[in-house]
Amino acid sequence: MTTKMGITGKQVGVTDATREFLVRWGAVRRQTEALAAPLTPEDQQVQSMPDASPTKWHLAHTTWFFEAFVLARLPGHHPFRPEYAFLFNSYYEAVGPRVARAARGMLSRPGLEEVRAYRAHVDAALARQLEAGALDADALALVELGLQHEQQHQELLLTDAKHALAQNPLRPAYREAPAATAAPHAPPPLRWTRFDEGLVHVGHAGTGFSFDNERPRHRVFVPGFELGSRLVTCGEWLEFMRDGGYARAELWLSDGWAAVQAHGWRAPLYWEEREGAWWHFTLHGLRPVDLAAPVCHVSHYEADAFARWAGARLPTEAEWEVAAAGRSVTGNLLEAGTLAPRAAPAGDLAQLFGDCWEWTQSAYLPYPGFRSEPGAVGEYNGKFMSGQCVLRGGSAFTPQSHVRASYRNFFPPAARWQVSGLRLAREA
Amino acid sequence: MTTKMGITGKQVGVTDATREFLVRWGAVRRQTEALAAPLTPEDQQVQSMPDASPTKWHLAHTTWFFEAFVLARLPGHHPFRPEYAFLFNSYYEAVGPRVARAARGMLSRPGLEEVRAYRAHVDAALARQLEAGALDADALALVELGLQHEQQHQELLLTDAKHALAQNPLRPAYREAPAATAAPHAPPPLRWTRFDEGLVHVGHAGTGFSFDNERPRHRVFVPGFELGSRLVTCGEWLEFMRDGGYARAELWLSDGWAAVQAHGWRAPLYWEEREGAWWHFTLHGLRPVDLAAPVCHVSHYEADAFARWAGARLPTEAEWEVAAAGRSVTGNLLEAGTLAPRAAPAGDLAQLFGDCWEWTQSAYLPYPGFRSEPGAVGEYNGKFMSGQCVLRGGSAFTPQSHVRASYRNFFPPAARWQVSGLRLAREA
Amino acid sequence: MTTKMGITGKQVGVTDATREFLVRWGAVRRQTEALAAPLTPEDQQVQSMPDASPTKWHLAHTTWFFEAFVLARLPGHHPFRPEYAFLFNSYYEAVGPRVARAARGMLSRPGLEEVRAYRAHVDAALARQLEAGALDADALALVELGLQHEQQHQELLLTDAKHALAQNPLRPAYREAPAATAAPHAPPPLRWTRFDEGLVHVGHAGTGFSFDNERPRHRVFVPGFELGSRLVTCGEWLEFMRDGGYARAELWLSDGWAAVQAHGWRAPLYWEEREGAWWHFTLHGLRPVDLAAPVCHVSHYEADAFARWAGARLPTEAEWEVAAAGRSVTGNLLEAGTLAPRAAPAGDLAQLFGDCWEWTQSAYLPYPGFRSEPGAVGEYNGKFMSGQCVLRGGSAFTPQSHVRASYRNFFPPAARWQVSGLRLAREA
Amino acid sequence: MTTKMGITGKQVGVTDATREFLVRWGAVRRQTEALAAPLTPEDQQVQSMPDASPTKWHLAHTTWFFEAFVLARLPGHHPFRPEYAFLFNSYYEAVGPRVARAARGMLSRPGLEEVRAYRAHVDAALARQLEAGALDADALALVELGLQHEQQHQELLLTDAKHALAQNPLRPAYREAPAATAAPHAPPPLRWTRFDEGLVHVGHAGTGFSFDNERPRHRVFVPGFELGSRLVTCGEWLEFMRDGGYARAELWLSDGWAAVQAHGWRAPLYWEEREGAWWHFTLHGLRPVDLAAPVCHVSHYEADAFARWAGARLPTEAEWEVAAAGRSVTGNLLEAGTLAPRAAPAGDLAQLFGDCWEWTQSAYLPYPGFRSEPGAVGEYNGKFMSGQCVLRGGSAFTPQSHVRASYRNFFPPAARWQVSGLRLAREA
Repeated sequence: MTTKMGITGKQVGVTDATREFLVRWGAVRRQTEALAAPLTPEDQQVQSMPDASPTKWHLAHTTWFFEAFVLARLPGHHPFRPEYAFLFNSYYEAVGPRVARAARGMLSRPGLEEVRAYRAHVDAALARQLEAGALDADALALVELGLQHEQQHQELLLTDAKHALAQNPLRPAYREAPAATAAPHAPPPLRWTRFDEGLVHVGHAGTGFSFDNERPRHRVFVPGFELGSRLVTCGEWLEFMRDGGYARAELWLSDGWAAVQAHGWRAPLYWEEREGAWWHFTLHGLRPVDLAAPVCHVSHYEADAFARWAGARLPTEAEWEVAAAGRSVTGNLLEAGTLAPRAAPAGDLAQLFGDCWEWTQSAYLPYPGFRSEPGAVGEYNGKFMSGQCVLRGGSAFTPQSHVRASYRNFFPPAARWQVSGLRLAREA
Repeated sequence: MTTKMGITGKQVGVTDATREFLVRWGAVRRQTEALAAPLTPEDQQVQSMPDASPTKWHLAHTTWFFEAFVLARLPGHHPFRPEYAFLFNSYYEAVGPRVARAARGMLSRPGLEEVRAYRAHVDAALARQLEAGALDADALALVELGLQHEQQHQELLLTDAKHALAQNPLRPAYREAPAATAAPHAPPPLRWTRFDEGLVHVGHAGTGFSFDNERPRHRVFVPGFELGSRLVTCGEWLEFMRDGGYARAELWLSDGWAAVQAHGWRAPLYWEEREGAWWHFTLHGLRPVDLAAPVCHVSHYEADAFARWAGARLPTEAEWEVAAAGRSVTGNLLEAGTLAPRAAPAGDLAQLFGDCWEWTQSAYLPYPGFRSEPGAVGEYNGKFMSGQCVLRGGSAFTPQSHVRASYRNFFPPAARWQVSGLRLAREA
Repeated sequence: MTTKMGITGKQVGVTDATREFLVRWGAVRRQTEALAAPLTPEDQQVQSMPDASPTKWHLAHTTWFFEAFVLARLPGHHPFRPEYAFLFNSYYEAVGPRVARAARGMLSRPGLEEVRAYRAHVDAALARQLEAGALDADALALVELGLQHEQQHQELLLTDAKHALAQNPLRPAYREAPAATAAPHAPPPLRWTRFDEGLVHVGHAGTGFSFDNERPRHRVFVPGFELGSRLVTCGEWLEFMRDGGYARAELWLSDGWAAVQAHGWRAPLYWEEREGAWWHFTLHGLRPVDLAAPVCHVSHYEADAFARWAGARLPTEAEWEVAAAGRSVTGNLLEAGTLAPRAAPAGDLAQLFGDCWEWTQSAYLPYPGFRSEPGAVGEYNGKFMSGQCVLRGGSAFTPQSHVRASYRNFFPPAARWQVSGLRLAREA
Repeated sequence: MTTKMGITGKQVGVTDATREFLVRWGAVRRQTEALAAPLTPEDQQVQSMPDASPTKWHLAHTTWFFEAFVLARLPGHHPFRPEYAFLFNSYYEAVGPRVARAARGMLSRPGLEEVRAYRAHVDAALARQLEAGALDADALALVELGLQHEQQHQELLLTDAKHALAQNPLRPAYREAPAATAAPHAPPPLRWTRFDEGLVHVGHAGTGFSFDNERPRHRVFVPGFELGSRLVTCGEWLEFMRDGGYARAELWLSDGWAAVQAHGWRAPLYWEEREGAWWHFTLHGLRPVDLAAPVCHVSHYEADAFARWAGARLPTEAEWEVAAAGRSVTGNLLEAGTLAPRAAPAGDLAQLFGDCWEWTQSAYLPYPGFRSEPGAVGEYNGKFMSGQCVLRGGSAFTPQSHVRASYRNFFPPAARWQVSGLRLAREA
């Protein structure tokens, strides 16, 4: 069966699967643009630190990904502008040299309008290829990878924009908060769910998309353990602070304690004390800290110290995956539109997906038998398997269709600008 | 006599002097905006290094200067937006805290449109005061200082924008070069003009505006000396380079040699070698180096090493002032519209004004009997009298009405992003 | 049965176990001093980088350990000199403040003679306590910990002294090489030993001493794997270098590639090319690289890149332990007196103990159910379980009685000044 | 007339002038060794910061100077050890490469005994040449330069040793204070001495030794001024501190204020507050601050801020020289043996020589017509004429025979480890 569809006009001979894919692909592309829309051209220009990128750069880089890995390999391809290969490559050594990461904010040209034209140009070219059925299985896999890649950048676009706006003493909101919100409710009490020891399977199963770092599925022996029923809340974090949590060396990893001293940490990122009350910067501007909501913007070091203070520990990524396996991916994710973690609902093991990424105690390392993807996209994940920690579960900035039980996110242990919180674990 | 004038509509009872001042003041304000006009909102957002500021910040800061030092002292003044005192104060400790210098590029808000509105608002308010004759002599002196300050920032706006555009691998032009230019002509040969020893007066004389650092006029004994008839050219600089100038320690001050090693200097800033030829980035984009034109974008260290290589030395600022005193301020200045140094015309002591600021061997120090201006504007010049070198004469980016024989510009010896070149001197 | 023994003169009523312990304890203490003996007082003063400590500081710190954790807790203890608690505490936050790590080389006082007196004083006091049977089980455990701690510092004393001597352009030898050495023989060819998958026990078993980080013994599922029969040799490393190993980004972890660029690595630490031949600095001075000997002084990043180049990978620490479990701890260890790795003997799985520490791919993390030791010595290991990699097997600088199959050494992945090499592994 | 003398045994045919020179030369050499004598070999090894050098290095470098610039140019010279040219060259690019300045403290070899042997060897060789009359006038001038150089290093040896000992929490004394000292007396009140304007001569006159930077003698017009009758005291400095001197931006140069913030300065270097009283570290250990004694170990920035606070300014170097010209060089200099500044005696313009070097407001720049010495020793002074400030008058660490009215010492404005204080000046 064939049909017409809207992206690039009229098509003939497009299969249902292709049509469906084109719809999904267009939706992801439009979603990125919608996320950028509340930001001015100048907002989209700012790079607030080397780890973060300008919004405009995210818009261009995600487009470059399709051009470099799909279109550029097709015969007769003419680049939209050859210099973009240099400007918008992120870290693919195999593709060639690139602008220094910390210098992305220097690129006032191309302007936002030209970047939008770049997006439209690449979209049109790719749609033509898709509709014509001109892409082989490898190329289609790269388009799929490009979509997943773009969804990752949707989250980064928000975390980076939040960081950039937070530098501004005017504390501008990305978007005004919805006028009517339900009164904050108290979080349910923390309970523990027990899991028995076992030789379990970990890693991606099934036929859907997965990143190479989720594979191969393999066996792991997991001793018995217990997992907290919800994320740690801001109220609990405040208790930790009031109990001297940031001043007691015995609670901290050595590197964490050094970070506390070096950076003067005394609260999560974006928290400010004003006349005795704690506020924090959010995408809705400066707001009072909601004690019932999950704490976020804490580093792995802070999460680890909190867990030690609480007489518990962080879960391993295998433990987390055992708990999450088979559950539906629902929760306070990007589509909920909250743009912020919310207090947990009642129920066992709430908030596994959404609200905050959950720091685990696991280092980000290859699974047994791991193989990088062939070619340049092999640099996507594998080369970062050193010095980073695994986070699981997604956040209020994560697209729902992007995350799953086997999904492995990773950041260095000192990173705080992601929507990162924690759930406690302990020995059974 | 009274008249109508155009800035803010109809006025009655305005004196000729006021009218004249209003015209000049409006012209300076419009000139700043005209210099910013070729830049996109995103160009105007970029801060390429801590020493440089975004164009938008220049637009706002020059406006804040009038608001903070003139309007804010008048009864009944309501600030346009109180936070701007924090955002757009540069370095006036007496006025209060401010955004860290290196973080000016983070301020995506206020946007360019709002900054333009700020300019219009302050202009209107100040014009009302001027027209009403409401300002006393001290306040009028501060308005004059504000104008001179704005003219300084016109040059900085261009040097900073040049630096920002130069970071972009696309090498975008600020403005396209004029289509028809005269064929470059060879520079006149270097001759020497002799000056006899004498006890001379140095510093500002007369009743026009001067900065506090040009005062008091005082006596200095200057031994006999000779001064080069024109600026050092790119062609001469290339000889220095080819003679190993950047690789011979004996030519350099110790700090200069350390800078050569640390930064890998081997040519002036913005020079690039492409297939054996030297190009440089200009406000007209990347252009072949014109051997006849004066070299610029060299540090004091480089100028000093070149002079030593040439068997000469840099002049002192007193020597330069002796040579320039009484001459008319004409040359390749901002109004010429060239936006770049040009080859010297024939004649003795060409290029004293315009083309390039000329590094002297003088440290920037107080004149005997120097007193800072009272109040916060006392921080304008005096507190920088340490670790910097004096430059004289103005550049192709300097407004003609801003510079004079007694004018003292100053930058650290490693600075290269200003339009800084050199003229040779030697013992008589 | 009682006897006399030599450390502090005549004893009465000392048990056999105590006597035996005193002998062992005295031997360890004397060994440290013997290792320091070839170094001049000035050699022993030098701190060549923040990660390394002066020899003199090692002598004092290992003594302070006994004083702070054993003697100071006894009634009536008078410190040898109270300030030493500040000078010679390494990183025990619970014990109090201390000299900054990087400033240990500033401590010219106490002089070496005074530090020797400090050692003698503490030895005498501790011997009296031991002979008198005055120490309870907890205290005796801390004495044992102190001995193990001192053995660790014996290795560090050598690695740090090597690093310090290597900074000296005179390339002084710690000790002259023995006159007659056997002709270097070719290493045996690399073979692979296969291990089947299994649910195995890992961690310390039995009643002997172990560090807290080796416990608790626990089950791990290990997929089938193969292990290289010997360490990677200098000759093999040279092939890697000649094949562009240090210039091919695709072989490296991202952090590793950044380290290569930042530090200009192009060979192992201490290697120098002289007229086309490779030499390296050893404790016997500058010597030609022995192609048959194991490569050492490579970082985890380099080991990882080499393994990828070789089509293999680093083993996990569990794999290594499976292979080493039950084997006798013999090899080219400190007692062999070689002070350098040597070519492997024939045989399967040679060099598991001694020669070089073997980088694994495992992050240094707590075992399931890990608990730090109570009290200040709980800081010994646990707080470093972040950002480091596990090494196994000991080196030519490691005392034979100090290492075992379950022993976990750990260093950051960029560290090169330890005697660190590698063994390859691959999937079965 | 000929005589026998003691340095290297029996000589025949030595002239009186040579004999006298040999005696002076030997005395300077012995003085250096006497200054080092109270320090242990380990003390002499320590380099506490890149700006300071180990005592042992001073001993060797001053010897290398004679070897490199005198002996090495003689036919048949065999270097004591060729590597020393690399180890003990300070900054002479023309002589060749050298150990990085910050790495001098790494050189545990040669040991102190070997350095002493080096000194004896070079002394003997040089004495032979001197006695034989084998040196021409140029060589003799270099020997004289070497002596003056060694006297400079005598002061540096003490300032560097003081800095090194001060890093040690034990606060060890270089030498115990003399048992009986006179009760500290109140300083005389500050008076002002007036000098009329005039065209004066500045720079070295006469036939004695001078450095190239004191030449040529030249004319300077000096406006009328007044000079304080003594140095600023610790008591006056304490008033400045109590009046918020370190917290008031308006008193400081911009670079100075940045240094206050960056380094946390709130008192002179070596000052410590203990239970409300101020102590400072001296070569006699930690001692109460003597309010009557001159303040020292202040930077140029601090001296400048103090002067502004006091309604005065620092003198120019010409003013200082006008005041000092023709006066005898007497005062609290090295030979007085106090090793510390003392309260001023009564009298006009006390303490011009000795006690503390006096910061001037003058940048260290070449005199008109300055020419560096030919050859490598031309690097001695000239290449440092950038970014530094002139100090005048010598300190309690300066040999009396080394300093004079035209002597120009120079250090960067942030330097505090020299014995640097200040005298006030003001307009007449």
